[in-house]
Amino acid sequence: MNLPIGYRYAASYAGIRKQQQDDLALIVSDTPAQAAALFTRNVVQASPVRLARQHLKMGKGTIAAVLVNAGNANCATRTGDQVTLASCKAVAKELRSKPHYVLPASTGVIGIELDGKLLTGAIPGLVARLSPDNFDSVARAILTTDTCVKVAIEEVPLGGRVVRVAGMTKGSGMIHPNMATTLGFIMTDAAVSASHLREILLHANERSYHSLTVDGDTSTNDTVVLLANGASAVKPDEKERKVLSEVISWVMESLAEQIAADGEGARKLVIVRALGFATAEHAHQVACSVAKSPLVKTAITGSDPNWGRILCAAGYSGVPFDPRKVDIYIQRLLVCQGGLAADFDEAALKSKLDEPEVRIRIVLNGKGKGEARFFTCDLTEGYIQINGSYRT
Amino acid sequence: MNLPIGYRYAASYAGIRKQQQDDLALIVSDTPAQAAALFTRNVVQASPVRLARQHLKMGKGTIAAVLVNAGNANCATRTGDQVTLASCKAVAKELRSKPHYVLPASTGVIGIELDGKLLTGAIPGLVARLSPDNFDSVARAILTTDTCVKVAIEEVPLGGRVVRVAGMTKGSGMIHPNMATTLGFIMTDAAVSASHLREILLHANERSYHSLTVDGDTSTNDTVVLLANGASAVKPDEKERKVLSEVISWVMESLAEQIAADGEGARKLVIVRALGFATAEHAHQVACSVAKSPLVKTAITGSDPNWGRILCAAGYSGVPFDPRKVDIYIQRLLVCQGGLAADFDEAALKSKLDEPEVRIRIVLNGKGKGEARFFTCDLTEGYIQINGSYRT
Repeated sequence: MNLPIGYRYAASYAGIRKQQQDDLALIVSDTPAQAAALFTRNVVQASPVRLARQHLKMGKGTIAAVLVNAGNANCATRTGDQVTLASCKAVAKELRSKPHYVLPASTGVIGIELDGKLLTGAIPGLVARLSPDNFDSVARAILTTDTCVKVAIEEVPLGGRVVRVAGMTKGSGMIHPNMATTLGFIMTDAAVSASHLREILLHANERSYHSLTVDGDTSTNDTVVLLANGASAVKPDEKERKVLSEVISWVMESLAEQIAADGEGARKLVIVRALGFATAEHAHQVACSVAKSPLVKTAITGSDPNWGRILCAAGYSGVPFDPRKVDIYIQRLLVCQGGLAADFDEAALKSKLDEPEVRIRIVLNGKGKGEARFFTCDLTEGYIQINGSYRT
Repeated sequence: MNLPIGYRYAASYAGIRKQQQDDLALIVSDTPAQAAALFTRNVVQASPVRLARQHLKMGKGTIAAVLVNAGNANCATRTGDQVTLASCKAVAKELRSKPHYVLPASTGVIGIELDGKLLTGAIPGLVARLSPDNFDSVARAILTTDTCVKVAIEEVPLGGRVVRVAGMTKGSGMIHPNMATTLGFIMTDAAVSASHLREILLHANERSYHSLTVDGDTSTNDTVVLLANGASAVKPDEKERKVLSEVISWVMESLAEQIAADGEGARKLVIVRALGFATAEHAHQVACSVAKSPLVKTAITGSDPNWGRILCAAGYSGVPFDPRKVDIYIQRLLVCQGGLAADFDEAALKSKLDEPEVRIRIVLNGKGKGEARFFTCDLTEGYIQINGSYRT
């Protein structure tokens, strides 16, 4: 798989993190790209989130560069707005572009002032380092408590040529639906208008970041950006856009799955499916309730096929249903039939639950066709250890 | 403090739990009492919950006995309804009362058949053991993963005499608002009608069980019962009922606080207050969001005064507010003023966070008068250990 053409990447250590590890990154499109973005719905929003919204509006959906820093969220800070604006100006100056073509994003601790000189001082060197080959370095620089880089790349033939899509993302705590969660940057070299990009992003987001939970917390900085620079010279028609939309959805679903698998302290990826509910929204709500339940998540930690906790979590989701019509499968084994214990080999299932991927399926038997899939992870002592001492 | 008069208690080991520890308990009022109860809102409801509702209706709010077992929730079981009915009949026979004057309740694992003979076999012995002195034994028998007994007792002079209120409860996982949570039994010897009792219970519940979270899970068995047998011969008038209502509220708030303090794996009780919001509902929603946040709870575990996580959790509560008007206090120290870091002594606060009780106060500065208080606990490795291996 090849990366989308017409993009360059750079990362460096600007001194924002305590440990010497790249904390500043830049993604540049050689010709300004069309863009769509989704931001946190938290009423507490970091300076970069507020400025990014503004820039997208001012540029009517045109973005030439994305500037990201890790280690400091630049949220609830006195100087946050000036620092963010100054950093966008510095990037624009080096690129001979406009400040509002630069989209800022941050991740890290809240409430600590971010020293603007660290950013502006590092930006010239960052721009000098731009290269199509630094995709992975950027994917690494945006991480915080993540244990691994999360990227996904796809290619698709469209209009006799090839269009490429690549995405990178970071987790791994403070993850929960309610729109674009965490940081995610998805690039394509197709030519798509900002308004069509927005449709595609909303569609793909529904099945990826919006169907993902690690701990139920949503951050002040969540940002997912989709860029399309047209460098492939392929301008998809309506039918082709549907294909592109699916490919972008795959990339984003893969990113969401990688976030869940690398959830803070997680040892297992958990995929919850709900089927047969009245609507897709109902199914989403049930799958979300099960995926969020600490009791379900800790049962999986302990490889305990405790389907009662799954049924219980479905029961308090707020969705009305008859429990006597519910079947539950764990690792494809029927464990609950019609709301009652099924006859299954508990020892065999326990060992299947030791696998790194756990699948839970909740089926409501009836006429409903609503389906949903949700990504989550087990809840281990590691989550406590990471978050009991993150800031200090 | 004395217990309410006219009640007798008994507990015994019926063989429901694996370990030999009392698992069956009976509370009897010498003359049938007026009763009000709140039950889980989970659509998956255990047999005892369904029968208890029915019995309350059939008896028009009259209850002579409460039969509780621990170790098996009797939920999602084939024979659950028969087992529960048979146990109520056995109690009624021994007491020469009516089956629908017996209110059943259960707690424990879901989806395992409960052997009815264990209950009916133990009931005659249980009735023989009834005594006003066995209050604590019953309080102990209803526990599951709790580490300590949870009781509260109050007395109040009313109409020239004394009225007594006593309550017992169990936690400590699967605790979350949405009505009466977990098991709670509150007795008074005042004479109050079932309909007035219901008003009192709803009022007290709002400030106690409905303002309590350990892990966000709500069980299939949650039951809180308030009994009034009139044995004190005090029949409060409207004004006196308000006093009684406050006293019952204190008892239930104390029980809720004890549950939070003994949350699974908890080392610290956390009390979150939200003040100055537009309505009490808004304040409740903000306090709940902060109290639920795993990131806030783990920061407290690590004695980390990370107020950013508190502000963030308030921000995604769904309540609209201006973060620039928010002050946050931890252990009575101002840590965030107008949405920004306040100048506080971090080392001093860290050591204050090592105390067993942590107080968080979120103040929205403006014209709002909505207040709420929420009980929760820190989230530790202990929670994972307990729930990763509960069933096995």
